[in-house]
Amino acid sequence: MKQLRLVYSYYGWRARIGLLVPSVNVVMEPELNLMAPEGVSIHSSRLVISGPSSCESYAIMSAQAGEAASRLRLIDPTVMLFGCTSCSFIENEKEIRKKIEDETGVPVITTSGAVIRALKHLNVHSVAVATPYVNFVNEEEKNWLEAEGFTVADLQGLELGKDEYDRKLIGRQPAEIAYGLGSRVARSDPDCVFISCTNFATAPIIDALEADLGIPVITSNQASLWAALRTAGLKLSIEGYGSLLRTS
Amino acid sequence: MKQLRLVYSYYGWRARIGLLVPSVNVVMEPELNLMAPEGVSIHSSRLVISGPSSCESYAIMSAQAGEAASRLRLIDPTVMLFGCTSCSFIENEKEIRKKIEDETGVPVITTSGAVIRALKHLNVHSVAVATPYVNFVNEEEKNWLEAEGFTVADLQGLELGKDEYDRKLIGRQPAEIAYGLGSRVARSDPDCVFISCTNFATAPIIDALEADLGIPVITSNQASLWAALRTAGLKLSIEGYGSLLRTS
Amino acid sequence: MKQLRLVYSYYGWRARIGLLVPSVNVVMEPELNLMAPEGVSIHSSRLVISGPSSCESYAIMSAQAGEAASRLRLIDPTVMLFGCTSCSFIENEKEIRKKIEDETGVPVITTSGAVIRALKHLNVHSVAVATPYVNFVNEEEKNWLEAEGFTVADLQGLELGKDEYDRKLIGRQPAEIAYGLGSRVARSDPDCVFISCTNFATAPIIDALEADLGIPVITSNQASLWAALRTAGLKLSIEGYGSLLRTS
Amino acid sequence: MKQLRLVYSYYGWRARIGLLVPSVNVVMEPELNLMAPEGVSIHSSRLVISGPSSCESYAIMSAQAGEAASRLRLIDPTVMLFGCTSCSFIENEKEIRKKIEDETGVPVITTSGAVIRALKHLNVHSVAVATPYVNFVNEEEKNWLEAEGFTVADLQGLELGKDEYDRKLIGRQPAEIAYGLGSRVARSDPDCVFISCTNFATAPIIDALEADLGIPVITSNQASLWAALRTAGLKLSIEGYGSLLRTS
Amino acid sequence: MKQLRLVYSYYGWRARIGLLVPSVNVVMEPELNLMAPEGVSIHSSRLVISGPSSCESYAIMSAQAGEAASRLRLIDPTVMLFGCTSCSFIENEKEIRKKIEDETGVPVITTSGAVIRALKHLNVHSVAVATPYVNFVNEEEKNWLEAEGFTVADLQGLELGKDEYDRKLIGRQPAEIAYGLGSRVARSDPDCVFISCTNFATAPIIDALEADLGIPVITSNQASLWAALRTAGLKLSIEGYGSLLRTS
Amino acid sequence: MKQLRLVYSYYGWRARIGLLVPSVNVVMEPELNLMAPEGVSIHSSRLVISGPSSCESYAIMSAQAGEAASRLRLIDPTVMLFGCTSCSFIENEKEIRKKIEDETGVPVITTSGAVIRALKHLNVHSVAVATPYVNFVNEEEKNWLEAEGFTVADLQGLELGKDEYDRKLIGRQPAEIAYGLGSRVARSDPDCVFISCTNFATAPIIDALEADLGIPVITSNQASLWAALRTAGLKLSIEGYGSLLRTS
Amino acid sequence: MKQLRLVYSYYGWRARIGLLVPSVNVVMEPELNLMAPEGVSIHSSRLVISGPSSCESYAIMSAQAGEAASRLRLIDPTVMLFGCTSCSFIENEKEIRKKIEDETGVPVITTSGAVIRALKHLNVHSVAVATPYVNFVNEEEKNWLEAEGFTVADLQGLELGKDEYDRKLIGRQPAEIAYGLGSRVARSDPDCVFISCTNFATAPIIDALEADLGIPVITSNQASLWAALRTAGLKLSIEGYGSLLRTS
Amino acid sequence: MKQLRLVYSYYGWRARIGLLVPSVNVVMEPELNLMAPEGVSIHSSRLVISGPSSCESYAIMSAQAGEAASRLRLIDPTVMLFGCTSCSFIENEKEIRKKIEDETGVPVITTSGAVIRALKHLNVHSVAVATPYVNFVNEEEKNWLEAEGFTVADLQGLELGKDEYDRKLIGRQPAEIAYGLGSRVARSDPDCVFISCTNFATAPIIDALEADLGIPVITSNQASLWAALRTAGLKLSIEGYGSLLRTS
Repeated sequence: MKQLRLVYSYYGWRARIGLLVPSVNVVMEPELNLMAPEGVSIHSSRLVISGPSSCESYAIMSAQAGEAASRLRLIDPTVMLFGCTSCSFIENEKEIRKKIEDETGVPVITTSGAVIRALKHLNVHSVAVATPYVNFVNEEEKNWLEAEGFTVADLQGLELGKDEYDRKLIGRQPAEIAYGLGSRVARSDPDCVFISCTNFATAPIIDALEADLGIPVITSNQASLWAALRTAGLKLSIEGYGSLLRTS
Repeated sequence: MKQLRLVYSYYGWRARIGLLVPSVNVVMEPELNLMAPEGVSIHSSRLVISGPSSCESYAIMSAQAGEAASRLRLIDPTVMLFGCTSCSFIENEKEIRKKIEDETGVPVITTSGAVIRALKHLNVHSVAVATPYVNFVNEEEKNWLEAEGFTVADLQGLELGKDEYDRKLIGRQPAEIAYGLGSRVARSDPDCVFISCTNFATAPIIDALEADLGIPVITSNQASLWAALRTAGLKLSIEGYGSLLRTS
Repeated sequence: MKQLRLVYSYYGWRARIGLLVPSVNVVMEPELNLMAPEGVSIHSSRLVISGPSSCESYAIMSAQAGEAASRLRLIDPTVMLFGCTSCSFIENEKEIRKKIEDETGVPVITTSGAVIRALKHLNVHSVAVATPYVNFVNEEEKNWLEAEGFTVADLQGLELGKDEYDRKLIGRQPAEIAYGLGSRVARSDPDCVFISCTNFATAPIIDALEADLGIPVITSNQASLWAALRTAGLKLSIEGYGSLLRTS
Repeated sequence: MKQLRLVYSYYGWRARIGLLVPSVNVVMEPELNLMAPEGVSIHSSRLVISGPSSCESYAIMSAQAGEAASRLRLIDPTVMLFGCTSCSFIENEKEIRKKIEDETGVPVITTSGAVIRALKHLNVHSVAVATPYVNFVNEEEKNWLEAEGFTVADLQGLELGKDEYDRKLIGRQPAEIAYGLGSRVARSDPDCVFISCTNFATAPIIDALEADLGIPVITSNQASLWAALRTAGLKLSIEGYGSLLRTS
Repeated sequence: MKQLRLVYSYYGWRARIGLLVPSVNVVMEPELNLMAPEGVSIHSSRLVISGPSSCESYAIMSAQAGEAASRLRLIDPTVMLFGCTSCSFIENEKEIRKKIEDETGVPVITTSGAVIRALKHLNVHSVAVATPYVNFVNEEEKNWLEAEGFTVADLQGLELGKDEYDRKLIGRQPAEIAYGLGSRVARSDPDCVFISCTNFATAPIIDALEADLGIPVITSNQASLWAALRTAGLKLSIEGYGSLLRTS
Repeated sequence: MKQLRLVYSYYGWRARIGLLVPSVNVVMEPELNLMAPEGVSIHSSRLVISGPSSCESYAIMSAQAGEAASRLRLIDPTVMLFGCTSCSFIENEKEIRKKIEDETGVPVITTSGAVIRALKHLNVHSVAVATPYVNFVNEEEKNWLEAEGFTVADLQGLELGKDEYDRKLIGRQPAEIAYGLGSRVARSDPDCVFISCTNFATAPIIDALEADLGIPVITSNQASLWAALRTAGLKLSIEGYGSLLRTS
Repeated sequence: MKQLRLVYSYYGWRARIGLLVPSVNVVMEPELNLMAPEGVSIHSSRLVISGPSSCESYAIMSAQAGEAASRLRLIDPTVMLFGCTSCSFIENEKEIRKKIEDETGVPVITTSGAVIRALKHLNVHSVAVATPYVNFVNEEEKNWLEAEGFTVADLQGLELGKDEYDRKLIGRQPAEIAYGLGSRVARSDPDCVFISCTNFATAPIIDALEADLGIPVITSNQASLWAALRTAGLKLSIEGYGSLLRTS
Repeated sequence: MKQLRLVYSYYGWRARIGLLVPSVNVVMEPELNLMAPEGVSIHSSRLVISGPSSCESYAIMSAQAGEAASRLRLIDPTVMLFGCTSCSFIENEKEIRKKIEDETGVPVITTSGAVIRALKHLNVHSVAVATPYVNFVNEEEKNWLEAEGFTVADLQGLELGKDEYDRKLIGRQPAEIAYGLGSRVARSDPDCVFISCTNFATAPIIDALEADLGIPVITSNQASLWAALRTAGLKLSIEGYGSLLRTS
């Protein structure tokens, strides 16, 4: 039963999530800690990202997935989570997962994969998307969602990320800005609102936005946690962060 | 006022702590998140450590301080924290801090430095020490504390760390084991009990141990947070984790 | 995205309600603040009213609607609310709304319009009405409700408003007086009780009155808030102030 | 005892505060409602302000004081409050109070007067000031405080207000921005931090800022409420918004 | 509207219950106050009872109903309550009600009438009865319930009341004794347990007894309050004292 | 130990208070039940009072003290309380107590006696008095307090009681009216405010009035309970109803 | 009614459970006290067990059942509980019950009997079993469950109990170890997980494990309490320890 | 560190108390569980007692101390507690402790020893004693306390224990009876009240009795727990059960 001793840890007795997070991100670690249930612990390793958002910056980030994952091997993670939405829909998501699984030997989730899984779980056909991104990322996002079979009812972005200062600003928006942007795209009468980006604060406004709109709201961090818990075999319900975590 | 926009972030509006944590550690991230006040966010980067505890394993870890710190530069940390107790009393603590400061340009705390600062803040002369370490680390710890001018009333360890499996076990002990070990060393009638190791769970039993013994209890994670907050200029009082965080 | 920055404000991130309130009113501002959900802020501008209740006093008040509304333009209101029940069923409600919309360019609600919308939302046919008004206003109220297609099962009033002192007294009644008056008119076995007047305190007794009578209770301030939130696109449920706000 | 009936109102049985607030302000009404104790109600009338901050804009605003106050006469206010900090230190504060008192016959407070009274109450000699203002207003503020006998240890502003859009932005900052600005000016080692402007959100961060700095924090809205309550004869203590409201 | 002013009182704004209570009773006033909802006040007048329980003692008590009721006329009761179970099933219940109504002009409830109404409301056919009474009262109780059309599955009593000391002991039993007695009679597999006597403490154990038995539990004080509230026109639900008050 | 069984009752295990209350009173029973600590029960018997307030009405009431008390003998009261302020300072207080003690054999408190004891307990020299009474009662009250050695700084009354309807109105005032009247008489700068009359609601505003004025506030019902508990030997502290009950 | 007096006790007014517990057990008494509802008290008598787990050690324990039970006769137990799972499936369960019933005259439950009853109550066909036992006990357990008609989907044990020290270790595992073991055996896709052994801590993780797995979880102590309460005639629902105690 | 594993158990990680309790006792186990802090577990073994209270019954009980203690050896108790007040002051307390220590090798407390230690800790000179005992036990108790150097201001007993039924009645009294008896003996103006007997419920009324009397109240179970915790080295403060547990 030696193995069992390592399954258990005082804070992560239900699951330990190994998180790969972009170096600029100041939102995902606090939001996962806020939303995670008792007995689930979050442990992170950083992927270097620098300069303005570009194809190149994403390629550099995805290239680090294996090495960053190796730094989490010793925590005996229950599941690994690649926590960048845009990188995982611009770069090859399958390859990213492969690199991480090779290093850790446990199931791997990416944020973009989690979002698709969540949209399908909620039977969404038409989705309105709110993002903080610059335009080329927004276009990629639209293509990706349509390729996955969804109708994009609307997609608007804050257009932040042209330079390094500007990109940092994404992580400095109050969550209520995401509420405002989410409300705005919801006028397109979608089945669901999706607020994209793990560095865009949303956790405390998801319930309010769902109550006000009357439709489900998915966000990058919420969907990532949901998929990670499901992958770890946990079917529990979590209050306070939207219907996705509450009802599944 | 462009600069001010970057001081603020939704979860880290009081301070963002950049944390360097050993790759095997499963306790420090959850404990800092548990104890941190509203508005303080924790962001981590990992230092690879592998194999049994040895002089070499510590040297390898300290050598990574600069690169690991560079992965946290873009969060604009308020303060950096090197979160390994034994590495920072075995290796050259000053050099570790230098490497990290060179990369980030902000004040740097190490756990060993935080503990010394905390012991002095509480006017401790004689300290009893509880550790999970193997013996050679325990001896180094005794030497270090005596070199800093403290009397070590007693020092006992769980003697975990001989191989990789064994070292992982440190992070798998319930916090109540730390209570039992702390009670035991307190029979030496010290001014204070210090429970060493950032991978040894202690946060939920600190208050109980203080109430039962009638003397202050310092632990690696609690002292690290305390010193990080003070260095960030925050004088607030935190309830629930011992007199160090409550009264200073 | 410059526009989005103005949608957000720290207290009014869901909606900012621009309120036009009679100068004598001491109840509507506290009641709206009491009932409003987090993220909805109330900002008011006053309409001068003086002397006893009369046709003339109402005409003077409605004439000020445009100017008073202009004083709220700069808050970028989500919705405007004309908060006088009797003025908006005695004077031309459509014209009042027009004047305000011309100044602010956003949707406009009047209390009388809100009440009609609420009665229809609850499928009410027969309504019993409790008012603090003098008789000529009571008669106008009965005509108005009948003209809108409702049966008035009973209508009783406190008969306050003959002179200025007397009119002020409306705003000085404890809410429990409204409970007593509401109970009394409910003996006529209506579908619903409507307690009229935005200067007549009712918020804390609505739930009790509904529980005791077993039918919905509508009041001027509750219906005004309900309609304003709906017009702002918010479908949330609010606890504590009757079934109208709870279930819709 | 006819008079006593008018002293009482259901929500304002302790005091009714008549508030004059600039038309652009979206913060003062919610903050006063948030901080006010049970039995104190807030009723407002707006002063038109438009265009960029300038000497002229302030003169226009102060000229409206009497008429705006007259719209609050019928609520029988316990005390009147002129709620614009900069207007009341740039324009003649005594004359503003005179106009309002002439219309209402009750005691009058201005925000600038309230701040001076609060600083003296806390025995402050040296004050550090955080503002959202453009520079010419900041200079006027420094002169005013020095003329009142205080040392201004530091004064920094967000420099918002150059045009109408920019001025609106003051009311759209999250309160945590005020925390960051307050922390920064506090490095000058003052007796007290004063965060100026009734349209700058601060209420939820005052306690945190005091705890972190270890000195009192005064803000325009907090000081205005404090002075209004004292003037109304209420000596009660209010928790949650700094030592000024708690201890006096 | 002069009349309305007397309907309202600060504590009894929903209803004022005029209570006639035997002089020896130490349970009914505290239990009614415990169970009554906000806005319902209890006001009592005593009926002299002395010596052992006997036909004569009951006759003396019922003879006082009119005079005792007259002492409650000035409170403008919403409903009158004759609060002795056994007296109201041994003596002529209709006459008792008549005397009280003649004095007060408002609807009158007796405890025995309330119990019958409650049993019918819950569709009870077979009832098990727990009492503190001496045997002759128990026999009368059985006859009464059977005459009303119920099957008495079992009836057991504490047999207290042989002399004045003994009768006082009824009012000195802990409520948990009523639980034990109620459990015992429930072995007869009835539809409902009825615990008789307004001087027998039961309120805090009703919910537990219902949960443990799985059938409704009626007690004299609970049924009296229920019938009084219904007679006063209040249909509200009360938590904590059994299904009768909760669901009707 | 037979005696001990009667000391105990389920709701009155600390003390049972036998209360004599004027028939018109709708406030004293709910207020005593509100303020009484766990284990203290209130049991009442009514004194008939009718018509307008007059010397004769008081004489009739005091004459009933003995008989009304006899109706409470069987509850084995711990202490008896004669609950009419004005009757006990207009009529002979000593004789009233004598009659009641003769019937019950236990210690007796009157409201007027309780007030004097409370004023002395708080070292009051100068008292401001708020009453709902007509003038002849107010004059008697002033004489009584001065005869007891106190300075009456101010005394104002609502002047209710000229006829039976008017007297009932005393019991129909919201407690906040007492706050307003108490604030007003406090302008005379007394050591203490006393709000007289057991039928005048005050309990929920005592703490607020003390906080706002900064001096103790005594009311008839609060002082009656305080004296009854002290006479029963209970030294406990009660929160929420002023310093008299809290600190003694 | 003398008998009734003995049914009641202050802490055990609903039921008193007489518990026979192995001398080494450190978990069952705290867990029963934790889960038991108000009014149910636990009283224990110990069965000596020593040395490693063996057929002989179980025979010695079962032989003591009668004498140990006799030490609980005077508490007038409502129900007796033989609290060792393995002893009651290895030894003759019927005989154990007989011995205890002969001494006490009240209904007797054994843990193994309780588990079978619980499995049937939940309509379980296939069960996965987690134990702390050595292998020979695990085999006996499998045989027993299959003999009772259940499919054992999986059965894994911690294999503790080879010597006395090792057996004590069962009682020293954190409850989260039981969670981990329960999760593991649940991969066999059973109807239900059963965690065996009254000395194996489980109470605080039952709800979490059920939420995560989506199937019922039965544990030895939970099922023992459930069966004891049902046998005592209590049908109440208990929150916090799994669906068995909640819904039955 | 093998030993440390046995110090820890999930419920008894601070201390495990081994309790010897008379077989008739139905109060001590629930009261210790009620008052014990988190992490302290209670494990009991019973001493047979039968028939009426007599010298012989006590001798039989004390003779069993060793064997009963041996049944608790395997829990590795932190401290042993002999839980019968009268037996430990009538029989030789030193010998009882010797027998238990010989079997378990850990420190031993008796209730009588705990009471003496508590009285001295509180600096008591004169004590009033309330007991449920028959007279010969009361006399022994008085002699014992005087021999220990205390003045017995008063001593009264319920005189229960003449036969077995009567003795069981001690354990069936509500705690409020102890309040009444404690109040009565307190009239002798002692320094402290001591309520004797571990089978006499007192825990929930200790705080109330202290508040009402203004002096400390010691009871057998409270003092036993206090002494056991102190002997186990725990200095913590416990709320809710008198000043002894709160302040020491």
